[in-house]
Amino acid sequence: MDQLIELLSRLPGLGPRSARRAVLMMLKRRGQVMAPLAQAMARVALDARDCHHCGNISTEEICPICQDPVRANGEICVVEDVADLWALERAGVFAGRYHVLGGTLSALDGMGPEELGIPRLEKRIGAEAISEVILALPATVDGQTTAHYIADALAATPAQITTLAQGVPIGGELDYLDDGTLGAALRARRKL
Amino acid sequence: MDQLIELLSRLPGLGPRSARRAVLMMLKRRGQVMAPLAQAMARVALDARDCHHCGNISTEEICPICQDPVRANGEICVVEDVADLWALERAGVFAGRYHVLGGTLSALDGMGPEELGIPRLEKRIGAEAISEVILALPATVDGQTTAHYIADALAATPAQITTLAQGVPIGGELDYLDDGTLGAALRARRKL
Ligand SMILES: [Zn+2]
Ligand SMILES: [Zn+2]
Repeated sequence: MDQLIELLSRLPGLGPRSARRAVLMMLKRRGQVMAPLAQAMARVALDARDCHHCGNISTEEICPICQDPVRANGEICVVEDVADLWALERAGVFAGRYHVLGGTLSALDGMGPEELGIPRLEKRIGAEAISEVILALPATVDGQTTAHYIADALAATPAQITTLAQGVPIGGELDYLDDGTLGAALRARRKL
Repeated sequence: MDQLIELLSRLPGLGPRSARRAVLMMLKRRGQVMAPLAQAMARVALDARDCHHCGNISTEEICPICQDPVRANGEICVVEDVADLWALERAGVFAGRYHVLGGTLSALDGMGPEELGIPRLEKRIGAEAISEVILALPATVDGQTTAHYIADALAATPAQITTLAQGVPIGGELDYLDDGTLGAALRARRKL
């Protein structure tokens, strides 16, 4: 029980106190809450994989977005993190496919172009007949450095490189934006 | 994955947004965080039981406190909830055993003396040679009504009935008190 509280308290948004309350609430409703939660978690932990194409996390080798032929509209949206992909999907403002970097360029964290899958992104341009790459990266120094690096790396490809425009506050994380702002930023995207 | 987020967001302290972030963090560290958490949760859900004697939740039929002969010091501390028992144990201010009511008297919620295990508490007085029953109930109307009901019910027994004194703020929940306040209230307990 102590181990469970300890493990739970490591989750973002939960401290030791809320972890204790959560465990207690689950203990009182072990049949209806705790057992199904444990089961759902075990199943997801076992089944979850990174999509070979885009880096999205799903329960299949190739994620549902990459499998959906309707999403092959010639657009790839590059995001830092799966959380950003989820945010865009929740907003329902983007009809193409994604490329999840899993971070931004950072010599300190050992994140180079290879780690971010930028060569893989380059290959996708031809393989998937991509006409536009939308860089939906955070408006931070690291995010913008990464955006410019990708724009340079893809300069020789036929794809147009665009970036999210107005709406993303300086220093803001995509995942925190409301759907309206996110949609407006996407629609007003500009050529980089 | 959606089901997992939905289940997690029902836990106290977690909304849909923190549940999403928690799931994402777990997904990224499926091996180190998600699988062990699922396992710990499944094991606890399967093994947890209410102690036959005191109502504490543990992984044994009789909880470690009721099994420990050192805790048989003639004192029983009556608490509303397992969370309160945990709070007192964390504070380390009580050396006896507990009686967990699992609520307070409430006609509305169908909580009568039987549901709160008050007859069982009465039997424990003789069976465990109890000399003092400390009522550590919340300083709410329901808590104090319940305290007085228990004091009346145990009036014919040889046990002295005491209650937590100063330190418990009006309307305050025991589980929210710091250890110092909780210890002071216990030491300054008075005869009811
Ligand atoms: Zn994919
Ligand atoms: Zn017990």
